[in-house]
Amino acid sequence: MYLRSWLSRLCRGLSSPVGRTTPPGWGSLSRNVVLSSHRRIPELSSFVVRTNTCGELCSSHLGQEVTLCGWIQYRRQNIFLVLRDFHGLVQVVIPQDESSASVKKILCEAPLESVVKVSGIVISRPPGQENPKMPTGEIEIKVKTAELLNACKKLPFEIKDFVKKTEALRLQYRYLDLRSFQMQYNLRLRSEMVMKIREYLCNLHGFVDVETPTLFKRTPGGAKEFLVPSREPGKFYSLPQSPQQFKQLLMVGGLDRYFQVARCYRDEGSRPDRQPEFTQIVDISDVFRKTEIRFLQDALSKPQGTVKAICVHEGAKYLKRKDIESIRQFATDHFNQEVLPIFLKANRNWNSTVAKFIMEEQRLELARLMETQEEDVVLLTAGEHKKACSLLGKLRLECANLLEMRGVVLRDPKLFSFLWVVNFPLFLPKEENPTELESAHHPFTAPHPSDIHLLYTEPKKVRSQHYDLVLNGSEIGGGSIRIHDAELQRYILATLLKEDVKLLSHLLQALDYGAPPHGGIALGLDRLMCLVAGAPSIRDVIAFPKSFRGHDLMSNAPDSVPPEELKPYHIQVSWPTDSEAEKSSLNQSHHLEN
Amino acid sequence: MYLRSWLSRLCRGLSSPVGRTTPPGWGSLSRNVVLSSHRRIPELSSFVVRTNTCGELCSSHLGQEVTLCGWIQYRRQNIFLVLRDFHGLVQVVIPQDESSASVKKILCEAPLESVVKVSGIVISRPPGQENPKMPTGEIEIKVKTAELLNACKKLPFEIKDFVKKTEALRLQYRYLDLRSFQMQYNLRLRSEMVMKIREYLCNLHGFVDVETPTLFKRTPGGAKEFLVPSREPGKFYSLPQSPQQFKQLLMVGGLDRYFQVARCYRDEGSRPDRQPEFTQIVDISDVFRKTEIRFLQDALSKPQGTVKAICVHEGAKYLKRKDIESIRQFATDHFNQEVLPIFLKANRNWNSTVAKFIMEEQRLELARLMETQEEDVVLLTAGEHKKACSLLGKLRLECANLLEMRGVVLRDPKLFSFLWVVNFPLFLPKEENPTELESAHHPFTAPHPSDIHLLYTEPKKVRSQHYDLVLNGSEIGGGSIRIHDAELQRYILATLLKEDVKLLSHLLQALDYGAPPHGGIALGLDRLMCLVAGAPSIRDVIAFPKSFRGHDLMSNAPDSVPPEELKPYHIQVSWPTDSEAEKSSLNQSHHLEN
Repeated sequence: MYLRSWLSRLCRGLSSPVGRTTPPGWGSLSRNVVLSSHRRIPELSSFVVRTNTCGELCSSHLGQEVTLCGWIQYRRQNIFLVLRDFHGLVQVVIPQDESSASVKKILCEAPLESVVKVSGIVISRPPGQENPKMPTGEIEIKVKTAELLNACKKLPFEIKDFVKKTEALRLQYRYLDLRSFQMQYNLRLRSEMVMKIREYLCNLHGFVDVETPTLFKRTPGGAKEFLVPSREPGKFYSLPQSPQQFKQLLMVGGLDRYFQVARCYRDEGSRPDRQPEFTQIVDISDVFRKTEIRFLQDALSKPQGTVKAICVHEGAKYLKRKDIESIRQFATDHFNQEVLPIFLKANRNWNSTVAKFIMEEQRLELARLMETQEEDVVLLTAGEHKKACSLLGKLRLECANLLEMRGVVLRDPKLFSFLWVVNFPLFLPKEENPTELESAHHPFTAPHPSDIHLLYTEPKKVRSQHYDLVLNGSEIGGGSIRIHDAELQRYILATLLKEDVKLLSHLLQALDYGAPPHGGIALGLDRLMCLVAGAPSIRDVIAFPKSFRGHDLMSNAPDSVPPEELKPYHIQVSWPTDSEAEKSSLNQSHHLEN
Repeated sequence: MYLRSWLSRLCRGLSSPVGRTTPPGWGSLSRNVVLSSHRRIPELSSFVVRTNTCGELCSSHLGQEVTLCGWIQYRRQNIFLVLRDFHGLVQVVIPQDESSASVKKILCEAPLESVVKVSGIVISRPPGQENPKMPTGEIEIKVKTAELLNACKKLPFEIKDFVKKTEALRLQYRYLDLRSFQMQYNLRLRSEMVMKIREYLCNLHGFVDVETPTLFKRTPGGAKEFLVPSREPGKFYSLPQSPQQFKQLLMVGGLDRYFQVARCYRDEGSRPDRQPEFTQIVDISDVFRKTEIRFLQDALSKPQGTVKAICVHEGAKYLKRKDIESIRQFATDHFNQEVLPIFLKANRNWNSTVAKFIMEEQRLELARLMETQEEDVVLLTAGEHKKACSLLGKLRLECANLLEMRGVVLRDPKLFSFLWVVNFPLFLPKEENPTELESAHHPFTAPHPSDIHLLYTEPKKVRSQHYDLVLNGSEIGGGSIRIHDAELQRYILATLLKEDVKLLSHLLQALDYGAPPHGGIALGLDRLMCLVAGAPSIRDVIAFPKSFRGHDLMSNAPDSVPPEELKPYHIQVSWPTDSEAEKSSLNQSHHLEN
């Protein structure tokens, strides 16, 4: 709870001066971020040849001789030049007198986006020429000397935020894309945010920042891990999916308040069931035990069958008939499911052929169970439990989008709404063999204390001490209380999950030596930053992201390696046959997403 | 220069309350570190069940009801128990009355190193029973309730700093070794130090913390890199040896003040010439052009031959004859070199058979060149330039050790002495083919501005803009001004170094788009921490280090992977033949040291 309120304050503090809907303009960034943190303003021109940043200059600098370095953003009639650095833009007056011919030549001939160094005096703009939209709009620089530090060749796109580029082009020329205001803003905000997190944990609460290894041993069922061949024949390291084993070992080692900004190497797409389902569902199977509606009957006759519904508040007021039709179509197309809309006022059932089979009695029971009001719409579906939940989850978001299009304010983008998700099951039936169990999260999660006895009788019913943190509908973190009892851990791994405990003998042994009870949480920094910065994709808050397929479009990684360079690692490539290659390329799309 | 003075203050600030020669005792750690940082003391018991840490309790807590969690360090006659947490030790009085039988049973039966939770009142120790050596020695805890949180099995070694363990045992049970006071101290000091660095860079100077990718493309000549097979047949990522390309790309992208606490993946042992040689040598070849001494004649007749000497101040006063003999023996055994000791006072040449061939004239010239005084000893050697330098470097350290054993204070361990090493050559002749060139550091280092013209005529003479930072004789960092001109970079890569520029096309292209002049430095955090904490090995300042051979002795990584698990990566193991296997195991010893 503490974490939630602190994160909320942190997010507000960092993003509120800017807001999430109106992106800030050049020059307002650093000041906002710094002021919002209530700290001394950093010295941005220490160690370097410039005396000031372009973006900081204003009337209080009038008469000062300054040296600026930056990129040429814009040039007007060979008289004005706009110089840009990370801090903002400033107008430079190109000297026109004969004695300054060499300075004029440099500033007029350098292509846009060349880097120049200029020295000159800060002067007022002539009356009427001030630009109130520009933070440095009251002043300009009367240049005395100029130096071309590096010329720029023809660019693949203009460095202006409003110029649209394809995602692939942005990634290919990432170093140019980083010059955009939005990327500068996002990366600097991320740095500030991480620094705040560190100050909170280290300085206020005595947490210890510990770096754990990247080259480690594979974990059981680690099909999602990257392997690293060593120079010993047949021996491989693995890049850990998360430092979770090290976290636990640090607890055993007495580093009782540990944190780390860690890298996780994980094939995210391969286990979509890890995503929690944010549906608020009501199970209404009992209402329809005796229904005459065929698809409900069919569903309820099956072992996992259920009837579920969500309530769209004021749906009857705002949703149009075509909205309902498109919702039903979506359910048929994507889930092969029927959806039944039920209006509380019987006269508004718009020719629904099935609705008439719903008896008044059922309607009233529904209204009671779902706490509906007159203008609400209930969307009802039936079928296999998990499928029905997934569908309703999607429909809930879809209805929210529709209502917002009709002007209903449901989700204020300036609000940070946190939600803890708890009481997950500890185990799930294996998809490929439902009689066997697999961990819902990972095998180190502790069972709920009141469910421990069920481990030996009905393990499927055991709730876990796992918790997820959700911000504005997106999962931003999760964690758990861990098992600290070696016997319990062995029982779960070996007896219930049938895992090879040999791979984890170091952890089991560590638990035997006085491991304290412990737990933790991991926040997904990329996703959290997206929400705070209002960025559409995690690629907008990472300096050098990989593409959807795990490629670095800038350097063209991963790349081929000549066979002789594989020799020291004692490996060779097994080239797939044609049919395998085809299969493999189909599988690619949900691998390596990060 | 600025960096040096700041680092010096930082090192002093962090380590001085403790000192490097007398390791601090339990309980003094956190307070020292925190006080030295002039900050508010962190709340160490927030979020957890304990009300206080064991180590913080003192007379000002008298009468308070406290809850403590910790490991049982020691038990005396079933009456006292010493409880330990990261903060220190506290004495707990085991209740002896009948009504507390269950508490007594728990506290008396739990094995040492079990974790317990106790609640009770802080009371004064009876007069005469105070322990002034213990920070909590004035008080003890009168226990009311106790709970065994986890019992401990028989330990492989005692958790006491004075109990000697082998390095292999420490690494195998790292989680137990971490409970030692020294490891707790080192890791917490490291966290504090890194935090200070971050505060300085981010908060005071506006640097931006940017995480760069770990999965990247291999660099030219990247034989020291780790490869990571991808799921595309024949395509590999590589773990970068350093983020140097990304650093440069961030500069091109306008992130002008970047820093990162980065992981480097490098086979450190494989290029020993990277270590700078910290010898202060004087070349005295000219003095001996006409010598009659055979080994000097021989050396000077060869192209790279030279006569070099170091001066050991007051050596004649402190070095004994057997010291000189052992020095000469060392030179013969390890370098196959002769060393000639020369005493300034002629009568003290101890039967040196060669010394008589040194004429008075030569002796005086030597004294002038080397600025020697009466009690000094000159150690002279001759031979191939590099070999002679390496030998004298070793001898200088050896003589310093000998003089310190005799009570001369040469190197005050409490002082932090920094030194910049500059004017490195840009290129060196390739060892395997001396007519070709290789980079002395890396191909992106800029040449010295006054030597640029030599690139086209005598590239071997070009000095680089590389700099190394040395602390108390150990290299702790290095960096350079980089090439920002694409043409110059292409010329150096393709024409001078004959590298395949295709692997670097993204970087060369980036330089074409208005790359600003830039440079940087990287500090070796592990080595720096060793010096600050006074630790003998970098393994003492890393939570989970690898062994000399790159093994994780705790988890047994790297490990075998079954062939079917290699399939998704399209690789198979090429098992070496018997003779190859033997060769490979011999090579191992200088690989993967980290």
